[in-house]
Amino acid sequence: MDSRIVPGHMDLRKAVITAAGKGQRGLPLQTLVDRDGITKSALTIIIDEVLRAGIEQIAIVISPGDETAFRAAAGRHAQILTFIEQAQPLGYAHAVASAAKFTGDDAFLLLVGDHLYLSHTGQGCAEQLVAIARAENCAVSAVQGTHESKLPYYGAVGGKLVDATRHLYQVDTVLEKPTPTEAEQLINVPGLRAGYYLCFFGMHVLTPTVQRFLGELLKNSAGREQAVHLRAALSQIAEHERYLAVELAGRRYDFGLKYGLLTAQLALALEGRDRDEVLRGIVELLATSRQPGK
Amino acid sequence: MDSRIVPGHMDLRKAVITAAGKGQRGLPLQTLVDRDGITKSALTIIIDEVLRAGIEQIAIVISPGDETAFRAAAGRHAQILTFIEQAQPLGYAHAVASAAKFTGDDAFLLLVGDHLYLSHTGQGCAEQLVAIARAENCAVSAVQGTHESKLPYYGAVGGKLVDATRHLYQVDTVLEKPTPTEAEQLINVPGLRAGYYLCFFGMHVLTPTVQRFLGELLKNSAGREQAVHLRAALSQIAEHERYLAVELAGRRYDFGLKYGLLTAQLALALEGRDRDEVLRGIVELLATSRQPGK
Repeated sequence: MDSRIVPGHMDLRKAVITAAGKGQRGLPLQTLVDRDGITKSALTIIIDEVLRAGIEQIAIVISPGDETAFRAAAGRHAQILTFIEQAQPLGYAHAVASAAKFTGDDAFLLLVGDHLYLSHTGQGCAEQLVAIARAENCAVSAVQGTHESKLPYYGAVGGKLVDATRHLYQVDTVLEKPTPTEAEQLINVPGLRAGYYLCFFGMHVLTPTVQRFLGELLKNSAGREQAVHLRAALSQIAEHERYLAVELAGRRYDFGLKYGLLTAQLALALEGRDRDEVLRGIVELLATSRQPGK
Repeated sequence: MDSRIVPGHMDLRKAVITAAGKGQRGLPLQTLVDRDGITKSALTIIIDEVLRAGIEQIAIVISPGDETAFRAAAGRHAQILTFIEQAQPLGYAHAVASAAKFTGDDAFLLLVGDHLYLSHTGQGCAEQLVAIARAENCAVSAVQGTHESKLPYYGAVGGKLVDATRHLYQVDTVLEKPTPTEAEQLINVPGLRAGYYLCFFGMHVLTPTVQRFLGELLKNSAGREQAVHLRAALSQIAEHERYLAVELAGRRYDFGLKYGLLTAQLALALEGRDRDEVLRGIVELLATSRQPGK
C-alpha cells in the first residue's frame, strides 16, 4: 500500500461549460490557431483543456437553437457532449443551475466559454486545478492576482494563505465586482502586492452543495432570477464547507473583450511552435501598414 | 448637357458574395474589430465594403442550412440580403452560376466571402473597382502585383498596360494557379517588377455574358461541374469582349489562410483608430510571453 497520506478523494468526472450569454454565445465558434499550429474552434481548445484534466463528461449550456453550430465547432468531440439549453436569458447563476440535473450528486469543473488558458508548466490550467481539488477534496476556485483597476470585470475572494508552495488560500469572503474601497476593507489578502486582489480566473471545481444553494436562491428570488449571482452560492459554500482558492501557473485570456480574440491568438502563437513565423508577420505588417491620416 | 465625354454607362447595382466553400463557410461569421474600433462579423465588414461602392442588392451563396447564422452575423444588413443555397458542393464556378437568376441580364460585382480589403485612399477597394467598371463599361477584375512564389494560390492574368495613371490593363490571357514557367511564357506583363505577375485580388465586375458562358460550360461538363473553373468563362470574355484588369490602391487579406484572421485583424487595427492601443498590447504580450521550451 502507498505509504503517502492521501488527504481525500474527490470523484471528479464532469465539467460544465457556459456559453449561453447574449454577447458570449458566438465566441466559442471563433477560429483560432492553437499552440501546436492547428487551426480549431475556440470551443475545441476549451474542450481539449477539460479532457487533459481527466474529465470524461462535458455539458455545454447554450442558447436555444445553437446546438447545430456548436456540434459543428466541436468536431470529433461532439459525441461526448451533452447540450443543455438555457430556455431564457436569466443570467450566469441560472445557467449554472440549468446543469443541476447533469451534475447531480457529483462535484464538477465549471468553465466559461469565452476564456482561453495558457499554462506556464507542462500541466494544463484545468489539470492543475483538478489535481488540487482531488487532493484537497473540497471546492476550489482558480484565482489570479489582479490589479484593483480591473476589479470592475471580475469576482474576487478574500482569505488567508494556507500553503505558500502551492499558492493555496482558504476563502472566507466572496465579492462580485467590488469597488477598490470594498476590496481594501473586505478582501485584502496579506502577502499579495499592494493594490492586488485575488480575482476569479474563470475556472472552479464546485461541490454538489453549490447546486443546492443555487436552487434555493433562485427559488426564493420571487421571479428575479437575474439578480441571483453565483457569488451568493459561493459565499454560502465558504460558510459551510472548506473552500479554497489557488493561484495557477498560467494566464487567462478573456476573448469576449474588445481585441480579446487578437490578444488570445497572439498569446497562443507567441508561446507556441509558430512563434518565429508570427513575429516575422507582425514585423512585416508594421513595416507596410500606413498610420491612419498619414 | 455635360460636355465631358462619358465613355460608357454600366448599370451596376448587384453584388454576389460566395461563402459556400467547405473550408470557407464559417469564415464570414468570424468576429473582427474594424478600423473604427467597432466589433463586427467579417460578413458585416464585407457588406459595408459593397454598400460603400453604391451597390444596392446583395446575394450571398451559402451552404444549405447556413442562412440563420449568416442572418445573425449580418445584423442590421440582413434585410437587404438574398440568400442562395448552393445545393451541392460543386466548386466556385458552380457557386457563381447558382446566382445566375439573381444577376439576370445585369452586370454584377463578385466578391469572395473570406477576404478583407484595406484601401490606401479615401475610396474603398470595391468603390474604386466599381468606378472603373462604370466609366469603362466593361468587365474588370481587380489584380495585385504578386510574387511568383505565391502563384499556387491565385488566378492570374496577362495583357498590356492601357492606362498607366489608372493602372489599367487590357486582359488577353487568364490562367488558374499557373506554374512559374507557364506564367513567364504566357502572362508576363511588361512594366511589372521581375518575377511579379497580375494575380486576382478576389473582386471582379462581370458582365451578364459571364453567366451565359458559365451556364454553357457547366451544361457541357457531363456531370463534372467541379472541373469547370471561373477562369474558363473569363478567358471567353477576354476573347469576345473588352476585359480589363486594374491594380487598386489597397491590399487584400485572405483570412482563410492559417493565421489569416490574425493578420487581417492586425492590419485593420494598425491602420485604424486603435493603432496605439493595439501596439501597446503587442509589446506587453512580447514582454510577458514565454518562448516555448524556455
